[in-house]
Amino acid sequence: MEQNFAYRMNGIKGSAIREMFKLMAQPDMISFAGGNPSPDTFPADALKEISAKLLLENPSACLQYGITEGYAPLKEKIKNRLIKQGTATESDEIIITTGGQQAIDLCAKALLNPNDGVICEAPSFIGALNCFRSYEAKLYGVPLCDDGIDIEKLEETIKENDNIKILYIIPTFQNPKGVTTSFEKRKKVLEICKKNNIVIIEDNPYGELRFKGEDIPTIKSLDTEGKTVMYCGSLSKVLSPGLRIGFGVGNAELLGKMAVLKQVNDVHTNIFSQMLADKWLEEYDFDAHIDMCKNIYKNKCELMLSTMDECFPDFVKYTRPEGGLFIWVDIDRDVDTKEFVKKAIEKKVAFVPGYTFMTDMEEKTSSFRLNYSTMSDDKIVEGIKILGELLNTLK
Amino acid sequence: MEQNFAYRMNGIKGSAIREMFKLMAQPDMISFAGGNPSPDTFPADALKEISAKLLLENPSACLQYGITEGYAPLKEKIKNRLIKQGTATESDEIIITTGGQQAIDLCAKALLNPNDGVICEAPSFIGALNCFRSYEAKLYGVPLCDDGIDIEKLEETIKENDNIKILYIIPTFQNPKGVTTSFEKRKKVLEICKKNNIVIIEDNPYGELRFKGEDIPTIKSLDTEGKTVMYCGSLSKVLSPGLRIGFGVGNAELLGKMAVLKQVNDVHTNIFSQMLADKWLEEYDFDAHIDMCKNIYKNKCELMLSTMDECFPDFVKYTRPEGGLFIWVDIDRDVDTKEFVKKAIEKKVAFVPGYTFMTDMEEKTSSFRLNYSTMSDDKIVEGIKILGELLNTLK
Repeated sequence: MEQNFAYRMNGIKGSAIREMFKLMAQPDMISFAGGNPSPDTFPADALKEISAKLLLENPSACLQYGITEGYAPLKEKIKNRLIKQGTATESDEIIITTGGQQAIDLCAKALLNPNDGVICEAPSFIGALNCFRSYEAKLYGVPLCDDGIDIEKLEETIKENDNIKILYIIPTFQNPKGVTTSFEKRKKVLEICKKNNIVIIEDNPYGELRFKGEDIPTIKSLDTEGKTVMYCGSLSKVLSPGLRIGFGVGNAELLGKMAVLKQVNDVHTNIFSQMLADKWLEEYDFDAHIDMCKNIYKNKCELMLSTMDECFPDFVKYTRPEGGLFIWVDIDRDVDTKEFVKKAIEKKVAFVPGYTFMTDMEEKTSSFRLNYSTMSDDKIVEGIKILGELLNTLK
Repeated sequence: MEQNFAYRMNGIKGSAIREMFKLMAQPDMISFAGGNPSPDTFPADALKEISAKLLLENPSACLQYGITEGYAPLKEKIKNRLIKQGTATESDEIIITTGGQQAIDLCAKALLNPNDGVICEAPSFIGALNCFRSYEAKLYGVPLCDDGIDIEKLEETIKENDNIKILYIIPTFQNPKGVTTSFEKRKKVLEICKKNNIVIIEDNPYGELRFKGEDIPTIKSLDTEGKTVMYCGSLSKVLSPGLRIGFGVGNAELLGKMAVLKQVNDVHTNIFSQMLADKWLEEYDFDAHIDMCKNIYKNKCELMLSTMDECFPDFVKYTRPEGGLFIWVDIDRDVDTKEFVKKAIEKKVAFVPGYTFMTDMEEKTSSFRLNYSTMSDDKIVEGIKILGELLNTLK
C-alpha cells in the first residue's frame, strides 16, 4: 500500500534509537544503556511456588478474561500501601495498567488534542515524550536543576503558552538525571499547576528505591483536593518488569476515562501476572524485599561512582543519586554524545546519549545517561574504565 | 480539575454498557453475554508444569524486560503456523500484542486521523468500533448478510465517501453474527480495497474453531502482494485469554509503525506469558488441543440451537454458526432489545442487545447476541428456556 500514515507518526522518530538499541543488545556489550533492574532482585523461587499453587487451585481465574480496571485484591493492596505512604486517599480510584507506561499513555490519550501543550523536565523519559508525541502534543522542555524543575522557567512557559494541559514530572530519582525534586519545589509545582488547571502526571517508578537520604512526600500526597495529580507507579523495578504491572491513581472522573480507553487498548492487564503479584505481596515481606533491592543498588551505584571518580577526567560532571537506577553525566566540553556513543559502542560499552531525552531531539548535547542496576560489579568497573579512557582522549 | 478531556472522549459512550456488564456479572446470572472461552479448554496442568520449569531454569528471561516486537521463538512459531495455513508469507512481519485488541488499536493509531473513514460490518465487534471512535474516525456500517458483507453497499459507501482508510472485517465466525464470509466475497472485498487503497484489518480470533463445514482461505492469504491486509489473531480463544497474547501480521512498513506505537503504549507484552505459550506450543499438541476445544463448542452450540428450536417462537430468527462462539438472534418484531434485555436480566439471564454492535449506537435493533461457550450445559438449557418464555410473551 502507498501508505498514508496518520499525522501523528511524523512526530515519532523511533527508528534511529531502536537501531542503536539493537547494536547495544550485542551479547558482549557492557551495557549501561537500559533501565533493567538487576535480575538478582527477582524472587523467582517464590513466584514459582505461587504460580504452581494458583494454577492448581484456581486455574480458571488465572486464565480467563479479567476486569479492565484490574484484579480487585491487587488493586486494594497497592492502594492501601499508597494510602499508608500518604500518596493515595480512600476516595482515589486505581487502575492496574500493563506497566507504568500504559498509565501515562491512557492519561495522555484521555486529555490531549493535537497541539495541546505538555511540559516536561528537560531531559526526561523518552517513553513518555514519545507517547505525548503520538497524540500530536507540543512538548515544552523546562530545565531540570539539581533540586528539581526550574520554577521560574516553568511559570514563564505557562505564561507564554495558553495550550498547556499536562505537566509530566518524575520528581524522585528522575530518569535520566537521577536527581530528586525538593519538598519546596514540589509544593510550588502543585500550586502553579492547580492555579493554571494543568494536570500533573507524577511518574514514580523508582520512589521505593531510596538508598540514601530522607523520603520526600510525593506531589500526589500534597494534592489534598485530589484533582490535579494523576500518580503512576509500577512493580517493574521492585518485583519484575516482565510481568508488566503498573498502576494509575487519581480522581474518579479521569480514571474512569482511562478505563474506557484501556478497554479498547488491551481489554485488561494479564490476569495471571496480577494474581501472581497479589499472592506474592500477600505471602512475602515486600519491605524486606525492597530493602534487599536498595542494598544491591546502593552498592552498584557507589561502585560506579567511585570508579568514575577514579577514572573520569575532572572536567566531566555527574549526578550522585540517592536512589533509583541512573547517573547523568555531562562531559561539559564541545562534544556531541550522539557521535561519542558510537566510539563507546566500538569499544563494547553502551550508554544512552543525551539528545534522546530532549523534547527537541535535534538538540546537541554533551551529556549521557548511565544505568548501574543491570551489569555485574565486574562489568561496571570494566565498562567505566573503558569510558574513562575514551573521555580522557577529549582533554 | 474542571477537566477538559480530549475531543476523542466524546465519541466513546462506554459507561452505559459497562454498567450493564456489571449487572450481568452477578454470580447467579446465566450469562450468554460475554465472549469467554470455556474454562474446560484451559490446559492448566500443562501450564503449571511449564511455568515451574521456566522459573527454575530461566528466571531472568521470564521476569526481565522483553523486546517490543515480541519473544522471538513465539513469533516464529505463530508465523510458521500461519505460513502453513497459507495466511502469512516469509516476507511478512509479525508483532506479538497484548491480546488481539491491541493489534487493532496499534493499526488504527498508525493510520487514522480525525474524520478518516472506517467501514465496518453492521453489526460488528464493539471493542473495535470503540477503538476506531477513540481516534475520532467516522464509522460507516455496511450490512452483513449471511454470506458476508453487502458488496454493493460496500462499493457505494466507498464511492460516496473519499475518506475511507480502513475496512475492519471479521470474515470467519463473525462477532456478533456468527456468519462466515464466502470465498467469492473475500476475493471481491480484497479487490475493492486494493483498488481504493484501503487497508483491510482482518480480525480472525475464532478462525481455528471451525466445528462444521469446510475452511475458507483468509483474505490475507489472497493478498499476494502483501500490501492490503493487516491480519490479526489471538491465543485467547485457543489457549487462554488471561495471558493476553495476540498478534498482528502484515507488511514491514505498517508493522514497523505499530511497533513504534507499542513501545510507547506498554513497552512489550508480558514476557512470562509469551514464554509459557511458546513452551506449550513446543511441548504439546496444539492441533489436538484445538480439536478438543472445537468438540466442546460444537456440542454447546448444538445444545443451544436445539433448545432454541424447541423453546423460541417461530417468528424469532437466528444464525446457525459453523464455528466460533456466537449466535445472532433477531426477534423480527417491533421490539427494542435495549429494553428487552432488562426484562431478561430480571429473570437472571443476560445477553448483549444489538445496538451495542452498531456503528450508530442510537439505532434501535430487535436483535441480540448469544454466547454458547461459557456456560455449562445445564445453564445453557435453563437460560434458553427462560428466554423462550420471555420471547413467547411478545407474540
